Amino acid sequence: MSPSAGVTYADVQDAAQRIAGVVHRTPVVTSRRLDARAGARLFLKCENLQRAGAFKIRGAYNALAQLSPQQQRAGVVAFSSGNHAQAVALAASLLGIRATIVMPHDSPASKLAATKEYGAEVVGYDRFTQDRAAIADALAQERGSVLIPPFDHPSVIAGQGTAVKELLEDAGGLDAVFVPLGGGGLLSGSALSVRALAPEAKIYGVEPEAGDDGRQSLQAGEIVTIPTPETIADGAQTTALGRHTFPLIRDLADGVLTASDTELADAMRLLAVNAKLVVEPTGVLGLAAALRLAEGRVGVVLSGGNVDLDRYARLLSD
Amino acid sequence: MSPSAGVTYADVQDAAQRIAGVVHRTPVVTSRRLDARAGARLFLKCENLQRAGAFKIRGAYNALAQLSPQQQRAGVVAFSSGNHAQAVALAASLLGIRATIVMPHDSPASKLAATKEYGAEVVGYDRFTQDRAAIADALAQERGSVLIPPFDHPSVIAGQGTAVKELLEDAGGLDAVFVPLGGGGLLSGSALSVRALAPEAKIYGVEPEAGDDGRQSLQAGEIVTIPTPETIADGAQTTALGRHTFPLIRDLADGVLTASDTELADAMRLLAVNAKLVVEPTGVLGLAAALRLAEGRVGVVLSGGNVDLDRYARLLSD
Repeated sequence: MSPSAGVTYADVQDAAQRIAGVVHRTPVVTSRRLDARAGARLFLKCENLQRAGAFKIRGAYNALAQLSPQQQRAGVVAFSSGNHAQAVALAASLLGIRATIVMPHDSPASKLAATKEYGAEVVGYDRFTQDRAAIADALAQERGSVLIPPFDHPSVIAGQGTAVKELLEDAGGLDAVFVPLGGGGLLSGSALSVRALAPEAKIYGVEPEAGDDGRQSLQAGEIVTIPTPETIADGAQTTALGRHTFPLIRDLADGVLTASDTELADAMRLLAVNAKLVVEPTGVLGLAAALRLAEGRVGVVLSGGNVDLDRYARLLSD
Repeated sequence: MSPSAGVTYADVQDAAQRIAGVVHRTPVVTSRRLDARAGARLFLKCENLQRAGAFKIRGAYNALAQLSPQQQRAGVVAFSSGNHAQAVALAASLLGIRATIVMPHDSPASKLAATKEYGAEVVGYDRFTQDRAAIADALAQERGSVLIPPFDHPSVIAGQGTAVKELLEDAGGLDAVFVPLGGGGLLSGSALSVRALAPEAKIYGVEPEAGDDGRQSLQAGEIVTIPTPETIADGAQTTALGRHTFPLIRDLADGVLTASDTELADAMRLLAVNAKLVVEPTGVLGLAAALRLAEGRVGVVLSGGNVDLDRYARLLSD
């Protein structure tokens, strides 16, 4: 067995059954004008239209639904300033589990509000003086709660794989699939679905140019850690792939590409004008590379749409 | 027979068959956070994700597909500075018909470009000194072409009715439906579908507060004409209902409501943040009233998403 055999496509299939009826089967949108721009036929999987605004609910719900009754009673803990926080909060609320989310005191008010609206307890910390992982670990220990990591977890990976499973089923006959890459949960899950359902198709992860640890890791043959990258793609400011995601990506993906912040902003504008979709900077990573490189029939995951209105308006005007 | 019996639900059903496979069956999107704001369960019919960015292709294609071979050879003419122009251009191109669109010289560059991209010939005119209807009539006469009006035509009305037909089929069991109202093509077609498929449901048209000729017409019992209203809803700057749309609305709709420009801008912002959708000012007329008034399970047609990027960014920031 290969080192990546810890998670298989069967786990993605199980996840698909677990999330059915709870997580949206998001639409696949096309735009002839965007196709003309890309020189390819694009199929946009709209995870920005997903519950809580991003694909993250797929993995979070899949992980939480498999906890034992005892674990569910003890509640769950997560640390995230982004889409994973809201996904865990929503999944927990749907399953009647108590969730505690460790978020920086200076998180955008909209994200704090959304997380609380889903019924989670928010524990604040100071980004400059405190270590969020240590706080979350201590909380989990103290309460006997399970810590739900944002990407490096077999159930999270399997859940994230369901988005591209649906895309391949709905669009059919794709030559390639492009997905955003941060810690690799979406890419590794997507690679499992592509290899199982469309073995001839290429599957690429796309990370910010300023944070190309994924590309470096594939070149080095081992996980490379970088400093926190400066990029508008705030959901992909990860510093390293995970011990579960790296081998899956190494063994199953066709490569890792990058996109610059300028390309991300351009892609956001093109999507607003031609596809009428609001997508966050991280969410257009796959599209930005596809616009540059795609040929034939190409699937693109738009991974999320959570962006503050002021920031979004500013990015559109630039 | 009532005076409105000129168009019936059977015509909407025929239109649905005619447009199948050509016009998108657009998704119905939901947002729990928007529901919380509205105090109702909203089902958003995303005609902003329609081909050419608005519902108008439904009526245009339905009308053009019924022309005789001789009429098709002679080409079609339309006058519009908005979504109808692009819809006729696209429908004509799909059917191999030559289209001539009469548009003001000072139309936004993006709209001129889009209309030409669909292969139409654009004939310019001066908005301040020339009468577009006279120009279009003269062109049609000269070439033996059929003039395709933007709303007051039985085939256009029947085509527009297919959007709410799909909405009722996909969302099921709605208590009310809210749609934008300009000249009444969408509202009269929608009313045919509601009366046939959900006879107990209410169907409302929503027009700009500054241009409430529809409300006035229902009160007066006859078509009331107003001066061109000043509103950000540029697609609903019509001055009167039509002779086909008025009787249908009078006999089949449950009322006409209005929304202010402030409410439209608010609704656009709420949609961007909560539903991740770009919708033009006219396109949120139904939603703006639904946010104020809706109860129960409510369908809302988001009628289009064609708005210049600069203007959109400005409306989001205000």
